[in-house]
Amino acid sequence: MRRLDVAFSPLGLGPPDVQGRTVFVLDILRATTAMCAALHHGARALIPVASTEEALRLAQTIGSADVLLAGEKDCVRIPGFALGNSPLEMTEQTVRGKTLIVTTTNGTKALLAAQGAAAVYVAAAVNLTVAGERARQALEEHRDVLILCAGREAVFGLDDAYCAGRLAIAALGGRKPRRGLNDAAIASLDLVRRYGDNWARPLSYSRAGRELARLGFGSDVLDAARMDAYPVLPQFHERRVTPAHQTPAQTQVASQPQLHPLPQPQPS
Amino acid sequence: MRRLDVAFSPLGLGPPDVQGRTVFVLDILRATTAMCAALHHGARALIPVASTEEALRLAQTIGSADVLLAGEKDCVRIPGFALGNSPLEMTEQTVRGKTLIVTTTNGTKALLAAQGAAAVYVAAAVNLTVAGERARQALEEHRDVLILCAGREAVFGLDDAYCAGRLAIAALGGRKPRRGLNDAAIASLDLVRRYGDNWARPLSYSRAGRELARLGFGSDVLDAARMDAYPVLPQFHERRVTPAHQTPAQTQVASQPQLHPLPQPQPS
Repeated sequence: MRRLDVAFSPLGLGPPDVQGRTVFVLDILRATTAMCAALHHGARALIPVASTEEALRLAQTIGSADVLLAGEKDCVRIPGFALGNSPLEMTEQTVRGKTLIVTTTNGTKALLAAQGAAAVYVAAAVNLTVAGERARQALEEHRDVLILCAGREAVFGLDDAYCAGRLAIAALGGRKPRRGLNDAAIASLDLVRRYGDNWARPLSYSRAGRELARLGFGSDVLDAARMDAYPVLPQFHERRVTPAHQTPAQTQVASQPQLHPLPQPQPS
Repeated sequence: MRRLDVAFSPLGLGPPDVQGRTVFVLDILRATTAMCAALHHGARALIPVASTEEALRLAQTIGSADVLLAGEKDCVRIPGFALGNSPLEMTEQTVRGKTLIVTTTNGTKALLAAQGAAAVYVAAAVNLTVAGERARQALEEHRDVLILCAGREAVFGLDDAYCAGRLAIAALGGRKPRRGLNDAAIASLDLVRRYGDNWARPLSYSRAGRELARLGFGSDVLDAARMDAYPVLPQFHERRVTPAHQTPAQTQVASQPQLHPLPQPQPS
């Protein structure tokens, strides 16, 4: 039987919940939106890490001028970092050819919680169609997809939950079974029914959206609502986020960009 | 400002999240429904405990013929226990005058997670009007209410989430602000908009409801959907669930039932 689950937060998710599954990680405000923006604008790779300290240590280890530190704590750029967590900062001029070491409050944690899955992709409104297409394929071929919301401080976030519903609809390809869906998946479809196609409403109603607007990041919320604005499919693999290989039906990209070798993670 | 939060599961909830607040615990399928049924039918008190072992130990310590063990694991009555977790078992004949030691998969854990709150009540469809009235009062007087869903194995359950929305609407008394609501509260109101007044639909769509039907407990799901069938307001206080004192506007009940003294919890 096909199985499509939504998890509203990574909290309580253990390795058995992700192992062998195709996982889509969402943190639409703003981590996964910013990741799509960065890769769409030519960043070579993103390396999500769990803490500021780990980011600094890793940057030092890699020691390349092509590395940029990116990340926020409580929505604000971490002091000394080149970039925050705004998709609008991820311009071609800034990120092309660079490797970004990224740490964010919720998004990074969700990605790291998905380690051990068969494949981990990054989704948001800005890449919904390509992500949805891959989710549909995965559901057809492997019959087992998990949409993992970063949530807000590990609890339910309306923004991610609505995005999960949009992705679930794309994955189901218009069919609307309840069989094979967990309760969170059903509720996320209900939210899409409630808000319709309008990304801006659930994003601006959500606490994350209201908080960002209050802190002067309202334009980030608008950017995150631009469906298919950054049509790239980021994949998290071997601790890096890079554009996914194209689908088998398409031609394989001839030359993968050269990646920095990554040191093993250090206990912190 | 008024603050009305919903938590879709107790996972990640710490003492600061409950401290000083008025908390309503929901596990509509079936723990909180069964608790309402038991107290409505004259049970003296319910004592929720975290494990079968603790239930057996406590029963032995109290050592009274008036004590009944009640509880389920994976929906099925625990071997050796007098009662399972079905509201239909909680008849007047069985429970009147008894103290029930109760352990259930999710409901008990949620109640225990609410310890430290200013007041903890038990809610379900079967007592929605009385619980909603108390929630409305609490929101007016203390301006701070948390509706805590037991969830299903600590993740989102559609049944509890819908019930949370119904209780939130009652607490808000018809007003529909988004200010002061967390994202889960907004989504639970969205679910009520989606399913309307029909308790049976979200309950039967939920995985808990489907699982119960599959195991032959379909009549429990129907019973749990009977709004105001057991109009009692259980309160969790000093490790016991008993009928709440009546509201100040009403006459204080003259004589509280005599309660067994409870031993201190043992480390297990």
